[in-house]
Amino acid sequence: MTDPLFKRVALIGIGLIGSSLAHNIRAHKLAGHIAISTRRSETLARAEELGLGDSYHLEAAEAVKDADLVILCVPVGSCGAVTKEIALALMAGAIVSDVGSVKGSVIQQMRPHLPDSVHFVPAHPIAGTEQSGPDAGFLELFENRWCILTPVEGTDPEATERLRRFWEACGSTVETMTAEHHDLVLAIVSHVPHLIAYNIVGTAADLETVTQQEVVKFSASGFRDFTRIAASDPTMWRDVFLTNRDAVLEMLARFSEDLASLQRAIRWGDGDALFDLFTRTRAIRRGIVEAGQDTAKPDFGRDHTRAPAGKS
Amino acid sequence: MTDPLFKRVALIGIGLIGSSLAHNIRAHKLAGHIAISTRRSETLARAEELGLGDSYHLEAAEAVKDADLVILCVPVGSCGAVTKEIALALMAGAIVSDVGSVKGSVIQQMRPHLPDSVHFVPAHPIAGTEQSGPDAGFLELFENRWCILTPVEGTDPEATERLRRFWEACGSTVETMTAEHHDLVLAIVSHVPHLIAYNIVGTAADLETVTQQEVVKFSASGFRDFTRIAASDPTMWRDVFLTNRDAVLEMLARFSEDLASLQRAIRWGDGDALFDLFTRTRAIRRGIVEAGQDTAKPDFGRDHTRAPAGKS
Repeated sequence: MTDPLFKRVALIGIGLIGSSLAHNIRAHKLAGHIAISTRRSETLARAEELGLGDSYHLEAAEAVKDADLVILCVPVGSCGAVTKEIALALMAGAIVSDVGSVKGSVIQQMRPHLPDSVHFVPAHPIAGTEQSGPDAGFLELFENRWCILTPVEGTDPEATERLRRFWEACGSTVETMTAEHHDLVLAIVSHVPHLIAYNIVGTAADLETVTQQEVVKFSASGFRDFTRIAASDPTMWRDVFLTNRDAVLEMLARFSEDLASLQRAIRWGDGDALFDLFTRTRAIRRGIVEAGQDTAKPDFGRDHTRAPAGKS
Repeated sequence: MTDPLFKRVALIGIGLIGSSLAHNIRAHKLAGHIAISTRRSETLARAEELGLGDSYHLEAAEAVKDADLVILCVPVGSCGAVTKEIALALMAGAIVSDVGSVKGSVIQQMRPHLPDSVHFVPAHPIAGTEQSGPDAGFLELFENRWCILTPVEGTDPEATERLRRFWEACGSTVETMTAEHHDLVLAIVSHVPHLIAYNIVGTAADLETVTQQEVVKFSASGFRDFTRIAASDPTMWRDVFLTNRDAVLEMLARFSEDLASLQRAIRWGDGDALFDLFTRTRAIRRGIVEAGQDTAKPDFGRDHTRAPAGKS
C-alpha cells in the first residue's frame, strides 16, 4: 500500500465544498487523518454525525496542528480572520490553501498573516451546486471539473505540484493562472451571471401587476433556471461581490451598456439587431456543449413528466 | 371506439411545437387526419420523412380545407400574414388557434382577417426546449405543463371548451386569462429572462480581457445555464420582443433600476443589502420546487461525471 499524499489534512469550514473534499479524501485515501473545524457547534456536530472526519474541532488552530495540508473552505470574507487564528499553530512546511471564488482578495487577506515557513497556494475548484452545508457534499462534485491554482510569486513549485496532485485525485483538471486574470474570468462566467439571476428574481418578486404565485406557477418558461442560481448561498455570494468588486463592476458596466442597446433595438423595432445577437449566442452554446461543459440534452435533460403547481 | 375530438387538424408550421403536437394528436387519437403545412419545402419533406402527418402542403390554404381545428405554429410575427393566406379557405365552424408566446399582438394580427363563421381561441402552451425544427418535437413536451387560453370577448364558450379538452389530452393543465395579463406575466417569467440571457452571452463573447475559449471552458460556474436559454430559436424570439414591446420594456426598466441599485451596493460595500436580497430569492426557488415546477435535485440533476474541455 502506498502512503497517502498527506499525513493530516485540516478542513476549516465544512459546507458544500469542505464536505465534498472530506468525501474525496476518504474515498481516495489522500490523507491519514482528516481534521475538521467549523465555528458553529451544530454544524460540527452534524459533520461528526455524518462521519466526515477523524477529529472535530471548534478551534481552527487545533485542527491545523501537525497538518501538512490546510484548506480554508469558508466564505471569502472570512479568510483573513481565520488565517490570523491559525497562523501560529501552522506546522513548518505545511501547504495552506483555500477554495474561494475570488483570488486577489484572498491573497491580500491571508498572505500578511502567514509565516514564511509555510507554502501558500490559493485554489478555486470550479464546482458547486445551489445547495450548502455539510449534508450537501458528495464525492463526484469535482469530477471532470476545473480547479484553478493561482500560486503567488516565489511559491515553491513542489508545493504547487503536490496540491495539483491532490485536486487531480479528486477528479479535477488543474490549470494555473494569475489571481488577477482568474478574478476577471470568474467575474464574467460566474459572478455577474449570479448577480443578474439574483436581480431578476428580486424584480419578479416585487411586481404589483403580476402576483408571486403567478411567477412561481409559470416559471418553467425560462425564469426557473435563474431561480436555481439565485438560490445559492447568500453569505458566500455577498462576500464574492464585496471582494471582487472591481472586476464585477467592470463586467456589469459592459453588460448594462449592451442591455441598453438591446432595449433601444426593441423600442425602435430593430429586428435585425436582435436576430444577429440571438444567432451569435446560439453558436456559443454549441461550443460549450462540444467542450463537454454541459449536457446536449434539451432542457438540461430535465424530467418532463412531473406534476405542476395546482395539479394535486 | 369513440370518435376523435376533431375530424381534421391543420398544423401550420412544423417546428418544435408543431411537431410535438403532431406526436400528441397521433398518440392520443385526437383527430382523424393531420394536415401539415410549412413554407420551406425541405422542412415539409423532413416532416414527411418523420411521418408526422397524413397530408403535406406547401400552401397553408390547402391544409386548412375541411379542417375543424387549425393551429398556427409559426413565429408570432408571421401570424397575420398566414391568417390572411388561409382566411378564405377556412371551414365555417372551425376553431382557429395558435401557440404564440405573445397574445395581444397575435389577436391584433389575426382577428381582422378571420371570417365571423370561425371560432378564434388564442392559446399558449408554456413548454419548450432550446431546440427547434421538426426533429425537436416529442410526445411529452406538454405533459404537466400549463397551457394558457386567452379567448377574446364574444368567443363561443363551447369552442374554448373543446380546445381545452384538446390541450388536456396533450397532458397540459389549462388556464384562461386576458391577453393583456398573459403578456405581462410572460414578460417577467420568460421574455426578460431570455433577453438578459442573450445579453450576457453577447457581453461575454465581446471581451478583450477574457478569451471566448476561457468563457466556454469555465462556463460551468454559472454562465452555461444562461447559454442554454440563449440558444433558443432566434426568429421566434426576435418576434417575441418586437410584438410584446411595451410589457418587455416595462419589466426591463424595473430590472435595470434594481440592477443599478445592486451595483451601488457593491460599489459602496453594502453587504447587508446584498445578503437580504440573496436570502429573499432563495425562498422563491423553494416555492418553485414545492410547486413542482422544477426538480429539487442539485444543479438540475445534471450528470457530474462528464469530461470537460481539454480533457480528451
